[in-house]
Amino acid sequence: MLLSFSGLQNNQVLGIGSGSTIVPAVHRLAERVKRENLNIVCVPTSFQLDVAIDGADEVDSDLSLIKGGGGCLTQEKIVAGYAKCFVVVADYRKNSKNLGEQWKKGIPIEVIPMAYVPVIRALTRKFGGAAELRMAVRKAGPVVTDNGNFILDWKFDKVHKWNEVNTAIKMIPGVVETGLFINMADVVYFGMEDGSVSAREKLAL
Amino acid sequence: MLLSFSGLQNNQVLGIGSGSTIVPAVHRLAERVKRENLNIVCVPTSFQLDVAIDGADEVDSDLSLIKGGGGCLTQEKIVAGYAKCFVVVADYRKNSKNLGEQWKKGIPIEVIPMAYVPVIRALTRKFGGAAELRMAVRKAGPVVTDNGNFILDWKFDKVHKWNEVNTAIKMIPGVVETGLFINMADVVYFGMEDGSVSAREKLAL
Repeated sequence: MLLSFSGLQNNQVLGIGSGSTIVPAVHRLAERVKRENLNIVCVPTSFQLDVAIDGADEVDSDLSLIKGGGGCLTQEKIVAGYAKCFVVVADYRKNSKNLGEQWKKGIPIEVIPMAYVPVIRALTRKFGGAAELRMAVRKAGPVVTDNGNFILDWKFDKVHKWNEVNTAIKMIPGVVETGLFINMADVVYFGMEDGSVSAREKLAL
Repeated sequence: MLLSFSGLQNNQVLGIGSGSTIVPAVHRLAERVKRENLNIVCVPTSFQLDVAIDGADEVDSDLSLIKGGGGCLTQEKIVAGYAKCFVVVADYRKNSKNLGEQWKKGIPIEVIPMAYVPVIRALTRKFGGAAELRMAVRKAGPVVTDNGNFILDWKFDKVHKWNEVNTAIKMIPGVVETGLFINMADVVYFGMEDGSVSAREKLAL
C-alpha cells in the first residue's frame, strides 16, 4: 500500500521518514510525480545526515564560507547545519586568506520581499558597503528563491569579524538567512590547478 | 498616467514610494485591484514609520513581548523593527511579570517547511520544553504563513534570558523569525478591567 501511494493526490504535503524501507518508496513516489505531473511537497521527518558535501563561492583561512551564488543559501545552510560533518569541495580560485579577495559578487542574503529596502538600509548603515537586489535574467524583476523570497548581494568594503556580523545580519527583521557559513565546514578540499587536491581542516580547539 | 496605472497587469510586483503624492495613487491602485480582481504585490520603497501600533499576546516587566498568535509574527516584526517608536496595546490579561505566566500557547517560531523537524530537535535540545507544528483549523495540514512557511509553537518550561534565547533561536538554520520581541516596545498601554488605561514605559538606560 505504501509503495503504490494509493491515497496520493495532487497538491499534497508528504512527510518522508527514514531508514532503508523509505528508499524504494521514494523512488516509487518520484515515478508517480513524474508520470502524473503531480505537485507534491515532501518534508523529511528527520535529517539522517552523517556527511553533507557542498561547494562554496569562497573559503577563507578560518574555513568561513560565502555560499549562495546560485540562490539556494537557506536550503544549503539547513542541510549543512544538520549534518554531523560538513565537507566542502571547491577549486583553487575559491581559496582566500580573507573573504572578498576572490569572490567579488558580495554576500547573498535572503530576505522577505516586503522588507528588502529597509534591510538594505539597516545593513549598510551598520556595516558599510553596498547591497543590491539580485535581478533575474530569464524573467522580469528580481530573483525569487525557492522559498518565495528575494536575495540581496552585499558588497562589503573591509574585513569583518564574520561571526558577529553574521549574527547581527540575521537578527535584522526581514532577514531569512545569510550566505555566511561560519564554524560550519569541517574540511575543505581544493582542486588545484595541477589536478592535485589540497585539504584544509578545521583546527581543533 | 501614474494615477490610471495604464501599464498595470495582473501578477505584477510594484514598488510603492512615499510622500503625499503616493496616497491617492495607492487608493486608485486599490480600486483597480478590487474591481479587476488583480493579483498585485506591493513592495514599499521606504518605511516612513514614525510610530507603529500593535497588540501582543503577552508582555513582561521588561516590555519583552510574545507575538504571533495570529501567525503574522514576521511581518509584525518587520514593521515594528523599522518604526521610530513602537507602541503596544493590550488588555490587562496580557500583563505578566515573566513570559509564560499568562500566555500558555508558547512562543511562535516561523520556519522554512523542510526544516521544521530538525528545528524542533535543535530548539528543545538546547532550551528544553516542547515544540509542535501549528496545525490549521479550516484546511488540512499545517498552518501556512503569508510567507509560505510553517509555524512552531514552543512551550518553554522555565524563565529564560530572552534576549540570548531569541538570538540563539533565530540563528538555527531554517528559522525565519521568532515571536519574541525584545527591546522593541517603547510603551505598552494596558486596558484595565475597570475601563482605565495603565501605561508602562521602557526604562531609560
